[in-house]
Amino acid sequence: MRYEEAGVHIEAKAEALRRAKEAIAATYTKEVLRGLGAFGGLFDAHALKGMRHPVLVATTDGVGTKTLLALEAGDVSGLGFDLVNHSVNDLLCQGATPLFFMDYLAASRLEEGVLAALLGSLAEACRAHGIPLLGGETAEMPGVYREGAWDVAGTLVGVVEREEILGPERVREGDVLLGLPSSGPHTNGYSLIRKVVAGQDLNAPVPELGESLKEALLRPHRAYLREFLRLKEAGVELHAIAHITGGGLPENLPRALPEGLGAEVRKGSWPMPPVFPYLQRLGKIPEEEMYRVFNMGLGLVLILPEEEAQRALALVEGFVVGRVVRGPGVLLL
Amino acid sequence: MRYEEAGVHIEAKAEALRRAKEAIAATYTKEVLRGLGAFGGLFDAHALKGMRHPVLVATTDGVGTKTLLALEAGDVSGLGFDLVNHSVNDLLCQGATPLFFMDYLAASRLEEGVLAALLGSLAEACRAHGIPLLGGETAEMPGVYREGAWDVAGTLVGVVEREEILGPERVREGDVLLGLPSSGPHTNGYSLIRKVVAGQDLNAPVPELGESLKEALLRPHRAYLREFLRLKEAGVELHAIAHITGGGLPENLPRALPEGLGAEVRKGSWPMPPVFPYLQRLGKIPEEEMYRVFNMGLGLVLILPEEEAQRALALVEGFVVGRVVRGPGVLLL
Repeated sequence: MRYEEAGVHIEAKAEALRRAKEAIAATYTKEVLRGLGAFGGLFDAHALKGMRHPVLVATTDGVGTKTLLALEAGDVSGLGFDLVNHSVNDLLCQGATPLFFMDYLAASRLEEGVLAALLGSLAEACRAHGIPLLGGETAEMPGVYREGAWDVAGTLVGVVEREEILGPERVREGDVLLGLPSSGPHTNGYSLIRKVVAGQDLNAPVPELGESLKEALLRPHRAYLREFLRLKEAGVELHAIAHITGGGLPENLPRALPEGLGAEVRKGSWPMPPVFPYLQRLGKIPEEEMYRVFNMGLGLVLILPEEEAQRALALVEGFVVGRVVRGPGVLLL
Repeated sequence: MRYEEAGVHIEAKAEALRRAKEAIAATYTKEVLRGLGAFGGLFDAHALKGMRHPVLVATTDGVGTKTLLALEAGDVSGLGFDLVNHSVNDLLCQGATPLFFMDYLAASRLEEGVLAALLGSLAEACRAHGIPLLGGETAEMPGVYREGAWDVAGTLVGVVEREEILGPERVREGDVLLGLPSSGPHTNGYSLIRKVVAGQDLNAPVPELGESLKEALLRPHRAYLREFLRLKEAGVELHAIAHITGGGLPENLPRALPEGLGAEVRKGSWPMPPVFPYLQRLGKIPEEEMYRVFNMGLGLVLILPEEEAQRALALVEGFVVGRVVRGPGVLLL
């Protein structure tokens, strides 16, 4: 018996890596001392010595079952952006900016074309933010994954000055919630979405949406790094940031709030992307469930002092969607 | 329709995290400023300011289809050690030591018991090396994973002084290859192993092995951090280190060698764990294929100047298995 007979195809992996090599190398900054092919990636951290008190921040994420919809639609080119952008937003919640990214791709069988497209997409997404794709792992696991299915996950490492860490301990009663628009469902709720749209033609234009389901549902997770940097450079004071992912506003806002403080959010105070009412109607999903599963149009919520809100709104596209109040939990009004 | 109907069970995940919370918190060092539950983990990197020129090292790995054998045998308690130890060895190849670990666990359905056991195992493995389990992601993906299958992956971040980075550029002709014994197949070749042992009773004692297949095949990947630190403290000069993973000696030794230099390895110069001849005979696997898939008893190969070999052997259990020679590739004599 040979390894190939057990369903492991070493050549397809090597060939896909060769095809994506240039795109990956294009993400390298001068900090990358060793990348692809090494036992581990090497990132020059000399710049951290110039910081007052560096704190490393790390986040691990996947894009969930959005991969299945992308594979069904025959287009995985957005999944790298989904993963990298999701991760970037998680770092922003701590006030951190990215240093480097590590990916993890796995499937029952590494099809060269899909793998090369995924690596290319990851590299492009990293490059868009100036983040080196420092390394990763690609695993072929017959028996673990379903035929044709892929998992796309990764880890982003970043850094923040200790005294600039954002979070619950900075938040005060009366602080304003400033919501930044999402591009759609981002990477959450796709197990439900797939049930709801099962059997629909993904490529047909949907009048209610003004585009096809493929366009509306595969649009990549939006990153808010540029917005964050613009606010930071202008000296706008931020207290905390909540990334609205799985669990929606009710579960993610509390992660940015201290014990004893909650949030009031006014529904209708931001424009609702048509994809959400469409999914709600088609799937007969209770409204409360919609808010618990989807971001409902808000990708990131900045929590900041009331007096900073107008200055922030002049710099980034966003909406005052509520405020921090006494008492626990999130009240959707 | 509700999210639960789409096959996503938020409660089982929350409950398993509650059960593993203490074990995870026990891995925290004073550097952990924010762990479980945060959008990202925070690791105080102030100590890096005291280094001459810090270089971060990152490695992402999975344990492959060893998960399936462990699930079949009803014991996942070693998988955390497999993952963390594998990752630690990858860092050693650069001369780096660990800072923190991030895990990624995924399955078609998050069974609370399995998830709690996996998190507990990861935490224990991290704690054994003093590495904080800083964060991670646990994903339930119906439709991506096969029923009952799990994926166990993660990213380890470490640090090394720039001038102490090990690697091919230090290696000289005539350098000695010092092999450190593996504990078995570690985490490689399990798709083939599962084909070979299919239908066998994993719990029955195998006279040839002196133990059951379960014991021989689920023994965790061995880490060599202690050995590395002992050599480092004694000032033993190392040139490079190869971690013998997928691809065996023929593919992993060259990753530690410069262009133009190869390696001669003398078979039989180290004790062969009985599990390898057993698998070879049972699966009728050609010998060349054995060396290409398995570590064949060597988990790590240190490459060092000949005059350092005896001093190294007095400090760690190992064997001189060959040397660096002119010409490409690995010659198994």
